[in-house]
Amino acid sequence: MLTVYSPDHELRNAKTELYGGELVPPFECPERMQFVLERIREVRLGGVIGPEDFSIDPVLRIHDRGFVEFLQSCWAEWQATGYRGEAIPCVFPARGMQQRIPDHIEGRLGYYAMALETSICEGTWTAARASANVALTAQSRVRSAGDSVFALCRPPGHHASADQYGGYCFINNAAVCAQAFLDQGASRVAVLDVDFHHGNGTQAIFYHRDDVQFVSLHGDPREAFPHFLGYADETGAGPGEGFNHNYPLGPGTAYDTWSEALRHACNRIREYGPDALVVSLGVDTFEDDPISFFRLTSDDFRRYGTVIGALDLPTLLIMEGGYAVEEIGINTVNVLIGFEGH
Amino acid sequence: MLTVYSPDHELRNAKTELYGGELVPPFECPERMQFVLERIREVRLGGVIGPEDFSIDPVLRIHDRGFVEFLQSCWAEWQATGYRGEAIPCVFPARGMQQRIPDHIEGRLGYYAMALETSICEGTWTAARASANVALTAQSRVRSAGDSVFALCRPPGHHASADQYGGYCFINNAAVCAQAFLDQGASRVAVLDVDFHHGNGTQAIFYHRDDVQFVSLHGDPREAFPHFLGYADETGAGPGEGFNHNYPLGPGTAYDTWSEALRHACNRIREYGPDALVVSLGVDTFEDDPISFFRLTSDDFRRYGTVIGALDLPTLLIMEGGYAVEEIGINTVNVLIGFEGH
Repeated sequence: MLTVYSPDHELRNAKTELYGGELVPPFECPERMQFVLERIREVRLGGVIGPEDFSIDPVLRIHDRGFVEFLQSCWAEWQATGYRGEAIPCVFPARGMQQRIPDHIEGRLGYYAMALETSICEGTWTAARASANVALTAQSRVRSAGDSVFALCRPPGHHASADQYGGYCFINNAAVCAQAFLDQGASRVAVLDVDFHHGNGTQAIFYHRDDVQFVSLHGDPREAFPHFLGYADETGAGPGEGFNHNYPLGPGTAYDTWSEALRHACNRIREYGPDALVVSLGVDTFEDDPISFFRLTSDDFRRYGTVIGALDLPTLLIMEGGYAVEEIGINTVNVLIGFEGH
Repeated sequence: MLTVYSPDHELRNAKTELYGGELVPPFECPERMQFVLERIREVRLGGVIGPEDFSIDPVLRIHDRGFVEFLQSCWAEWQATGYRGEAIPCVFPARGMQQRIPDHIEGRLGYYAMALETSICEGTWTAARASANVALTAQSRVRSAGDSVFALCRPPGHHASADQYGGYCFINNAAVCAQAFLDQGASRVAVLDVDFHHGNGTQAIFYHRDDVQFVSLHGDPREAFPHFLGYADETGAGPGEGFNHNYPLGPGTAYDTWSEALRHACNRIREYGPDALVVSLGVDTFEDDPISFFRLTSDDFRRYGTVIGALDLPTLLIMEGGYAVEEIGINTVNVLIGFEGH
């Protein structure tokens, strides 16, 4: 399988993540990519190419222009205030408050944030753009060659909504690519999100639409980030009613239960009959992931890759989360091997 | 003037405040109270008495029971997770997300938070209860004696809504006392909020009611915390329409502009004709306050105390913010001296 990758992700190298009331070194760190890349080379998965340079236009098909401009200028504006840490808001438009966009950078940060573990630092926007270019390059290959391609994206994307960043995500690569398939002639695209965390951004972006089906397996939001989206009764709205499928699963979920949900999810996708499949591939479902509570083993990743491969669709696999750095390479590549060997 | 005070505020002694992307020692610290208390004694303002012990009932007249139970159990629940810092959420019900209350303490923190600078630590709830008892004791004296009384409350209250904490606030002392006046027979109560920051909690609590008038002078929310409430066009809703008055003022506002707004605000209160007045007294309008942008001098505090005193109403003055610790005593007591000498 072809992999698309850019070293520009290293430009995002935040020093701080708000976690458990402390500022800790981020779980979502550049080293993650090295483990995956090394494993790809070790097993000779296939070629690794760099991204082409896409304009901002495909990103703006999904994201609000004001949000994009905010992400571009945020770090410079934050620094201009004299604040000494990385950019983290401490106030947001809470329940019952206004949804107006303030002028001050701290207020604007809060307006555009959906979570606060994600410090914005120098290089964040450049890395997010590079990540989107990686995804779009892979998407372009899937479309032109009909093959399946792996986009080794960092930063990830699935928590980012049209105008919100957070959960380590800025540009929703999966959503941007699903839209690109449609803009290039596809009638229907399915997004299958197997990251441990609910893909709230992707869901929100397509919630009212029937041309993108969103199917997600994830930690029950009552117990897991992002806590405020991902319930089973969120099934889409308006024309999108019936095109959103959530499988929230409880603490300690192992492969038997998880794979049962996956097979159910894959049947939904088969029924939908998409022209292309986008997989939001997070491997934080691993039993030793430091911030998640599922119990998948490394072998399970290969097994489920086979299940997804059996859908037999032109598939774009996009890297999302996964934080047990030593094993992230093995588990990610196991999915790809399973996928190819179905 | 009589002051009510409890040393139990010292039980809230958080180590961390999220500020400018760093965890810093909180601006809202126990030392604040010492400066005020010493100044009260220095100028022989009047007696200082301890609080009576009120039940939770007057608090529950304003605050949601689930919120109160959350505040009581939060620190123990947080510690049980193994998190090592003080309790700060990193995710909240953002725009477009569910308003369901999660089970996990991190999700519940986010649900009940309106801002994140406010770490919850051991003793927070006990101190907040003591602060409410201080306010209620003072309220009871105002009612029985008809005199005006100063409630030297800490933690402050005006950012807390019926079911949200933040901005250093947990129980909205001003709202609880306004309600107590009503429950004891008053027909109308006015709340005048002169803290630098908009009293978003008090506004939200009474926004649909005509028996409490809320009048606030504060930093323009486009530039100042809490950023998402406090606009001039927020005038109340339903039966409360016309009973909410905001005076947002820009960076660098000095006494001439500020006092013009105050006189306008006092005329609103006169027109309303309340049976009692509650003043949310923050002195972070001071020119050297570290987190605010007005330009009042120490003399200005005495001058505006006179203006408020001229309303000639039974008045409960409740301590809110003010963070330039050296001057907080002088400025607070200057308001009280001005008030008494009108």
